[in-house]
Order: sequence, then C-alpha cells, then structure tokens
Amino acid sequence: MSIQSSIQQISAEQVAAEQQLVDTVVASFSKAEDQRLKQLMQSLTRHLHNFLREVRLTEEEWNAAIEFLTAAGHITDDKRQEFVLLSDVFGASMQTIAMNNQAYKEATEATVFGPFFVADAPEIPIGGDIAGGANGQPCWVEGTVTDTEGRPVAGARIEVWEADEDGFYDVQYADQRVAGRAHLNADQDGKYAFWGLTPTPYPIPHDGPVGKMLTAVGRSPVRASHLHFMVTADGLRPLVTHIFVEGDPQIEIGDSVFGVKDSLIKKFETQPAGTPTPDSRDLDNQSWARTRFDIVLAPVHI
Amino acid sequence: MSIQSSIQQISAEQVAAEQQLVDTVVASFSKAEDQRLKQLMQSLTRHLHNFLREVRLTEEEWNAAIEFLTAAGHITDDKRQEFVLLSDVFGASMQTIAMNNQAYKEATEATVFGPFFVADAPEIPIGGDIAGGANGQPCWVEGTVTDTEGRPVAGARIEVWEADEDGFYDVQYADQRVAGRAHLNADQDGKYAFWGLTPTPYPIPHDGPVGKMLTAVGRSPVRASHLHFMVTADGLRPLVTHIFVEGDPQIEIGDSVFGVKDSLIKKFETQPAGTPTPDSRDLDNQSWARTRFDIVLAPVHI
Repeated sequence: MSIQSSIQQISAEQVAAEQQLVDTVVASFSKAEDQRLKQLMQSLTRHLHNFLREVRLTEEEWNAAIEFLTAAGHITDDKRQEFVLLSDVFGASMQTIAMNNQAYKEATEATVFGPFFVADAPEIPIGGDIAGGANGQPCWVEGTVTDTEGRPVAGARIEVWEADEDGFYDVQYADQRVAGRAHLNADQDGKYAFWGLTPTPYPIPHDGPVGKMLTAVGRSPVRASHLHFMVTADGLRPLVTHIFVEGDPQIEIGDSVFGVKDSLIKKFETQPAGTPTPDSRDLDNQSWARTRFDIVLAPVHI
Repeated sequence: MSIQSSIQQISAEQVAAEQQLVDTVVASFSKAEDQRLKQLMQSLTRHLHNFLREVRLTEEEWNAAIEFLTAAGHITDDKRQEFVLLSDVFGASMQTIAMNNQAYKEATEATVFGPFFVADAPEIPIGGDIAGGANGQPCWVEGTVTDTEGRPVAGARIEVWEADEDGFYDVQYADQRVAGRAHLNADQDGKYAFWGLTPTPYPIPHDGPVGKMLTAVGRSPVRASHLHFMVTADGLRPLVTHIFVEGDPQIEIGDSVFGVKDSLIKKFETQPAGTPTPDSRDLDNQSWARTRFDIVLAPVHI
C-alpha cells in the first residue's frame, strides 16, 4: 500500500501539513557537519514518517511502541541483547550483512553474527575438541581455506562457536564456563579439522518483548541448527558465517533470524557407534557425525 | 535519493537477493491473526529495509545503532523517557498527534503531550494559582472553552502544567514537590482563568544519547517557551496542546520537538510592577504578564 493510497481520504490540507512536518524535520539536520551522519538522519526521518503515515499510526499504538522499546532496554544487559534480537527478527541484521559482504566469485557467503561470540576463546590444535564439556553428539568438522583463486590460505584463523544440545551457549549459563567455542589456525595447506557438536535447533531468548511479538504474530523463535564460523586472514575479507544441517526441518519452517543460505547447508553424516574416527579417537561407543566445510575468502577490495 | 539510484552500482543478483530477503521477512508475518498487527509489522519491515538499502548501512553503523538504543534503554526509568525524546526529536510524536487530531473547523490545534504530565494534579478554583511555589513571573491566563458551533462548554476540565523559570518541571526535582501544575473546571459559561508563570525556554533532557545525537548534528535541545493544556469534556474530542509565547526567539531557531503551530502562538503582555491585577491580587510590586487562550473543542467523531 502506498502512502498516496492509504491517505486518499485525508484532506489535501492535512496531507500538506504532514509533508511540511517531514520537510521541517529533514531540514533540522541540514547543519550536520558530518555528511554521512546527515544522510543517515535525513533518510531515517523520511522512511520513519513514510511508515507512520502509511499505517496512520494511532496514539495507542505509539504508546505500545514506546513501552516495547522501554521493555527491550530494561531486559538488555551485558549477557542479553534484546535490540540485536529485534534487528535479527526483522531481517535487518541479515540485510546489513548481505549488503556489506556481497557475493564475489566462489567466496563463501556470510550470515548473521549473533549475540554469543566471545573474543579470546581457547586455542585448540588442528583436530582438537571445542566442546569443553558441553553436551551433544561429537561431530568431526574438516575443510580447507582458500582464496577465490583457489590458493590455500596458510594459517587462516578460524573461530568456531555453538550451542550445546540443550540449546544454550556457555555464556547463557550463570557459571563462568567456557564451552562450545574455540579458535584454531589452518595449516600450511589451508587445511583444518576439529571436533565440535552436531548442531541442534534452539530458540532465540524469547522471554522478553521480542519473544512476545513473535508469539503475537504466530512466528517460531527457533533457529535452524547451525555452527558459527568467523574466519580471518591478512589481505582477505573477514568472513562471519554458519553452516546449517541438511534435512533440519526448521530450515523449511523458517529460521527465526533469516540466516539460512542454500550454499551454507551441509551434509552431516551420522556414523553408527563403533565407526572408526578420522583421528582414531576413542568415543566410548557413542555415535558421531562428520561434515566438510570448504571455506573460500574474498579479497578485501572486490 | 531513491533506492534505485543509490544501489545503481550493485549487481542485479545482489539487488534480487536483498529484495528476496525483504519478501521473506514480510511473509513471515503473514500468519498473524491480528490483521492490524500484521499490517504494522509488514509495513515496518518494508520501510526499515528501504532505509537500510537506501543508505547502504555499514556494519559499524549498525553497531552504533545498537549501542544507541542500548544506552537509551538504560537511561530510561520512571522519571526519564529517552525513547519518547527520541520520537520527539525525529518529529514522530508530532506526526502521530497530527494524524490523530485532524483539523476540524475552528477547533484548537493539538501538539505534543511530552513526558511531564502527572495525573491527579491539585484542583484549583477559577482564578487560583498553579505555581505551588515554582519560580517565575506571575502570568494571568484566561479564556473560554467552546465547541465548534460556538456553544460554551460548561465545566470543561482543564489540566495545565509547565516548567519553572529554571527550566525544570516539578517531577525533575529529587524532592516530591508538586508545583507548576493543577486542574480546574470552566464555569457555566465555559470561562476559565488562573495564575501561572510566564513560560521560558528550556532544553529537553540532553545528557543522554538523544542529547549527544542533537549535538552531533548541530541541533539545539531547547524547546520554545510554552504552557501545556489538556482539555476534556463529555462528547468532545480530548485536546492536548500548548500555547507558545509570541516573540520568543526559539520559535525562529526551531522548537526541538517540532511542536509549534502558528495558531498556538499567543501574545503575552507584560505588565509593569504596580499594574492592578484582574482579581485585585497583591503581587508585592512584581511585574506580571497576561494572555488569552480561547479553546475550541472538536466533536469526538469528525
């Protein structure tokens, strides 16, 4: 619905007065010295007013919006970020990622960063285990890091993090555990491998205003099962991404933060208990899974 | 700048992928049972993504936005409402008021409510004083409340509130004072009068993220001098408005929340010390001011 059609029963004087207000607010930012800030504020003003005028927001709805933002602010602390969740469930995070990490040749696609990354996670050797005691099915993850010319990226730094099979990241527990996260470096041929956990679906934190909104509109808070990666190397574009699990029904239902891209869905092959492991690790008669994720980094300037 | 022109150097595949994401987010709200909520969420999604795509928001700017909202949430409490200020300085509050209180014949125009109204302010008789000890020049305010057919509105309830000459409302002080606010009822002929304070300019609270934003874009946080009114009567549209002071230089500089309307600018006539007062009140040789504000209420359904 356009602004024109939605306000077609409004008098010409009213339409003119509403537009005059928009123009006045836009002009109020005209003295900003920072030209980019000026552009952002003026564009935000126009789109915000376009929204208000298109839906003819009521005063009651305006109050509800203020209450929503207030509640989001009050639930947010150093472990909970409701505004990131809000951006995520409107696809704003994913759109920002998409615009700033444009496709380039065969470069691996990016997806949302999420709120659960922690800098300085423990370092593990190639073939090491990131679990740190987190519950879940062991999963062998291996691959090669190359650039878009197919050259191995020796020593690329690979950060990995994921939820346990109960659906929680380590930082969501009240104790100070560090689990389900680590970093490692690719070898001279760009190869890497580690033991993680087979990803399982979990809901984003949904006991706050964002969760209430999702319930009100009939949307699931559940994320498709995934394992986070951040891969960096000198002279190449940093990559923040996940891999997803082929066959996970949540991919069809819809990932709550719109992070799934077809190229990031990988086969996770379950291995019956007793199947020999790639590094001869003894898994005490558990079943395990394996997957392959070859990573291609774009140049910094494409 | 349109989305088309701002993304003209982006590949067709990228444009299609961005639009596909918008469509997916819009579709995610399609199961909402509340049709109005569905409309609001889908429209918000479209306008939000139009903004992001028009300005090509960077990841650094996205982070700054999250930090801004987080800081706004944390400074907000039961006495401070940063999200209302944010809505105010983008003209969103005024636009919402304007859409929901459309012009009707000679009905008095509405303006922003602001965050400083308090229910159950003291009742005063006609001719009483709202100051309650607040500092400022005494000001006699009088007028008549009528409907748009010119009929007096007997007994109309009039709430009035204002800042003191130091620029603060009573609720901004740490003590529990009640000052600069009251309610009274018009008489059988719709007439009212009270002693208030001549309004003076003051800044909106600007020690938080909204104040920092105003500084960054070179905008003044100062509001044009004003006196708040809320007028209600059975069968008539409630009116929330201010009167402004003719000649106040802040009207030209720009009211920080875009609340000024020409019809609400009133003459405040200063009376030299010793000038007899309308009700023979002895002002102890102070100067005083007087103004007239005739109020016209629209019907509930226009």
